[in-house]
Amino acid sequence: MYSEKVMDHFMNPRNVGEIEKAQAVGEVGNAKCGDIMKMYLQIENDVIVDVKFKTFGCGSAIATSSMATEMIKGKTVKEALQLTNKAVAEALDGLPPVKMHCSVLAEQAVKAAIYNYAKEN
Amino acid sequence: MYSEKVMDHFMNPRNVGEIEKAQAVGEVGNAKCGDIMKMYLQIENDVIVDVKFKTFGCGSAIATSSMATEMIKGKTVKEALQLTNKAVAEALDGLPPVKMHCSVLAEQAVKAAIYNYAKEN
Ligand code: FES
Repeated sequence: MYSEKVMDHFMNPRNVGEIEKAQAVGEVGNAKCGDIMKMYLQIENDVIVDVKFKTFGCGSAIATSSMATEMIKGKTVKEALQLTNKAVAEALDGLPPVKMHCSVLAEQAVKAAIYNYAKEN
Repeated sequence: MYSEKVMDHFMNPRNVGEIEKAQAVGEVGNAKCGDIMKMYLQIENDVIVDVKFKTFGCGSAIATSSMATEMIKGKTVKEALQLTNKAVAEALDGLPPVKMHCSVLAEQAVKAAIYNYAKEN
């Protein structure tokens, strides 16, 4: 049911945790299943130099967030805004259609964090 | 948002894994979120002497399954059939209403396993 990459990012998720002095924090909830995702960005000169996430969500939410954080690390804020849940799912060699709603959490949390950052800067 | 007991059973889930020669196996899916739960029962003289579960579901699914397996271990098959997701949630000092659908997986997987067992015996 799940690709090898999904299993890998679920069993060994990258960038799990908090950034204490994050410049940007985004927290979003998933309307479908009720899960929550919190994303912390450390930004220097408009570049995302570090990113961490925390969730109580399912394996697919963990895998997509792990992959999403890898995809935006080292990118500019503007580039990170281009991230879509579809691109993340593709980078994981796909997700079962019934679990695509989980991948939305990562995209929305990145956008919420950047939105909060932009408001303050 | 989550009780201490939920956090404990999420961080240190009991009875995770498989039972190779289980007398009863139940697998169910959650219509709401698409998550899957597999439950293995080892039954001797109608008593559940061991039980293990596997899921790719969220933290609430893990916590409720962990608690549910503790609640039915040592019980008769008939007693285990009385288990409700409400009783499991109560034993965990409650779940957020939006996450109650996750607790259904454990109850249904136990019932599916026992149903499969009854069919064969
Ligand atoms: S959201 Fe699917 S089991 Fe909890």
